Amino acid sequence: MSRALLTDHYELTMVQAALRSGAAARRTVFEVFARHLPGGRRYGVVAGTGRVLEALENFRFGDEELAFLRDNRVVDAPTLDFLAGYRFSGDLYGYREGECYFPGSPILTVEGTFAEAVLLETVLLSILNHDCAIATAASRMVRAAGSRPLIEMGSRRTHEVAAVAAARAAYLSGFAFTSNLMAGHLYGVPTAGTAAHAFTLLHDSERHAFQAQIDSLGEGTTLLVDTYDVAEAVRAGVELAGPDLGAVRLDSGDLAEVAHAVRGQLDSLGADKTRILVTSDLDEYAIAALSAAPVDAYGVGTSLVTGSGVPTAALVYKLVAREDAEGIVQPVAKRSVGKPSRGGRKNAFRQLDPAGTALTELVTVSGDRPADSRPLQVELVRGGEVVGREELEAARLRHRETVAELPAEAHQLSRGYAAIPTVFD
Amino acid sequence: MSRALLTDHYELTMVQAALRSGAAARRTVFEVFARHLPGGRRYGVVAGTGRVLEALENFRFGDEELAFLRDNRVVDAPTLDFLAGYRFSGDLYGYREGECYFPGSPILTVEGTFAEAVLLETVLLSILNHDCAIATAASRMVRAAGSRPLIEMGSRRTHEVAAVAAARAAYLSGFAFTSNLMAGHLYGVPTAGTAAHAFTLLHDSERHAFQAQIDSLGEGTTLLVDTYDVAEAVRAGVELAGPDLGAVRLDSGDLAEVAHAVRGQLDSLGADKTRILVTSDLDEYAIAALSAAPVDAYGVGTSLVTGSGVPTAALVYKLVAREDAEGIVQPVAKRSVGKPSRGGRKNAFRQLDPAGTALTELVTVSGDRPADSRPLQVELVRGGEVVGREELEAARLRHRETVAELPAEAHQLSRGYAAIPTVFD
Repeated sequence: MSRALLTDHYELTMVQAALRSGAAARRTVFEVFARHLPGGRRYGVVAGTGRVLEALENFRFGDEELAFLRDNRVVDAPTLDFLAGYRFSGDLYGYREGECYFPGSPILTVEGTFAEAVLLETVLLSILNHDCAIATAASRMVRAAGSRPLIEMGSRRTHEVAAVAAARAAYLSGFAFTSNLMAGHLYGVPTAGTAAHAFTLLHDSERHAFQAQIDSLGEGTTLLVDTYDVAEAVRAGVELAGPDLGAVRLDSGDLAEVAHAVRGQLDSLGADKTRILVTSDLDEYAIAALSAAPVDAYGVGTSLVTGSGVPTAALVYKLVAREDAEGIVQPVAKRSVGKPSRGGRKNAFRQLDPAGTALTELVTVSGDRPADSRPLQVELVRGGEVVGREELEAARLRHRETVAELPAEAHQLSRGYAAIPTVFD
Repeated sequence: MSRALLTDHYELTMVQAALRSGAAARRTVFEVFARHLPGGRRYGVVAGTGRVLEALENFRFGDEELAFLRDNRVVDAPTLDFLAGYRFSGDLYGYREGECYFPGSPILTVEGTFAEAVLLETVLLSILNHDCAIATAASRMVRAAGSRPLIEMGSRRTHEVAAVAAARAAYLSGFAFTSNLMAGHLYGVPTAGTAAHAFTLLHDSERHAFQAQIDSLGEGTTLLVDTYDVAEAVRAGVELAGPDLGAVRLDSGDLAEVAHAVRGQLDSLGADKTRILVTSDLDEYAIAALSAAPVDAYGVGTSLVTGSGVPTAALVYKLVAREDAEGIVQPVAKRSVGKPSRGGRKNAFRQLDPAGTALTELVTVSGDRPADSRPLQVELVRGGEVVGREELEAARLRHRETVAELPAEAHQLSRGYAAIPTVFD
């Protein structure tokens, strides 16, 4: 599907007016950054860059799109001609997926003519605002879960296509599985699942249901044990599957209390290897609160796909430099009240102390790399060709490494300020 | 695109186990309802049903989907065979789009075999949870705006495809326009736009930018006037476009104060018909707070597409009845702690007082229609064929009518209880 109409009306009318004034062809630099980290987050996680590159390659105005624009008089004939031939031929630089970011970090830099670059604003921000918000929430949950695996199961709580991107972002941040099959198909995220209450209710008794599940899926399956009476269900499960029953899932009640009781019961039945999976409105706080409970894995739904209170990342796409009448590229910035912008194309470096702990995010117009720092931007697109594609697994590994670099205060779950300061120079 | 993989892993493994136990062919009834209205909303708005019908027609397991499931051993060979032939052949009943709903309202009822009906759970809930949440937030904003039009411009703040559904839901609830071109293309939602700060910064001066916009888009255009100095920009705008300048947009600062100043300035320049559009993190509370300010239209972004604090509608899909071993359809319900469910297939009626004001939501297993009530469910799918399709405009009109039926307390913006009680019988 072409992504070209996943775009705000005004991007096209601005192109029309700029084609008429001649400014459409001016070279420009746009940057994507966050003025702040919403929700008092201590860091953000870059996610969606891989999807940005896909969208860029599918950003074409075909006959269907052009007919819509013509029939609805969105733009004039010269603009339709321009759009018909549209291919992004500029350059993209950006932070790698999985990298952490802070207020002002230039996570994506777009260089091209005004007409070429402004058209991408909406779809780029849509992707990054969604995916970064989910990945950031996921990263907090992964940290709260310690060594216990997390299963993403929030598809039903968000838009059906957003769910696929959410599963991808969660995996990038360290989730182990998703319930979403499309995320498995498109992105290779491992998929997993248990059973629903409907499956138990469908059968004549809970024992019939458990037997059916074990017959078909093996003793290593996960039985949902809270449809009627938990203790009775656990007893029936171990009786039917034997002590090698894979896991039981708890989806209601005081999870810590129930988990303790179930662990005791399982152990007393000889099923000491049977794991306990808990679900039911978990977020990073609930996960942390269960750290002392005998829980082996967490399933997270609503709070993951809604960014745990922060469903969008507050990223903006701002013109920071453009060619003037003499052909010189000049920094520009608006002066709107309360919305600070800094002109000029930026470079970004993470400065580390000798132990490898992040100290500052240095954002500089000069471009000089300071000592003891790591450059944060890489080339993603050169002359319209994607050169920065990478595997999701690589991004997942990078996230684990870069989040480990952050100072301890980055992992406080309470609201606060960014874990390291951003220094502009 | 097939929607079949927009599905949780466990739906398919439950089908596998039920095919093996023989229960897959049992006739079942599933209902979609909300246990509560999250965020202390006074009512919910049904949205997404039209998209549910589309998804149902595109829910097919083709070669690509089956290969993924086979290669990843998600299900066994008999289940793959079943999925290859999958067509929903059952019936759907539900509330019409635009209708209001309350806790327990059975907004969608799915009747079919277990295997046919359970597979639809994920995609149906994804669509309805997203679209209902957005439509509900939008309805509050429309009410807060009174007779002033609202423009939806949140695409960049949500997943790129979710943005299209959000624009559709906002229009259904009474928004006048969207910035999202795909929503215009797919659903006929009127599109609109203004200009961004980047357009002003692109040019050598604000006057050059305004002149370019007026030359291309006409004097009826909307000029963004807060890039540098608002008063200077308004003066330049009227000077260049004349007193028939369409509108100015304010996107920063204390909007009420700035709107008063700009209105005074416009009037003094003879541009008394030039409208004032305000944007910048508006939600229903900010819109209400601007009711005394000289504002002509509101642009709403982030808070619309994120459901203004409630990004998902808490709708669930529950088995309420199924065929037993004797072929009799019996009500069923789980007993999980704190998650009340009521067995049996329900009918729903809105009871009205003589003046036409809603009094109660009657949800009844008996199916008898009480006096002075309006039946809320219609047939949407019969034997797998869609019979309940309708135009988005019809849903939009219905919403205006049904929201007008609610008692005054429905329109309090504060958190509270449902505006009318749900009575189960």
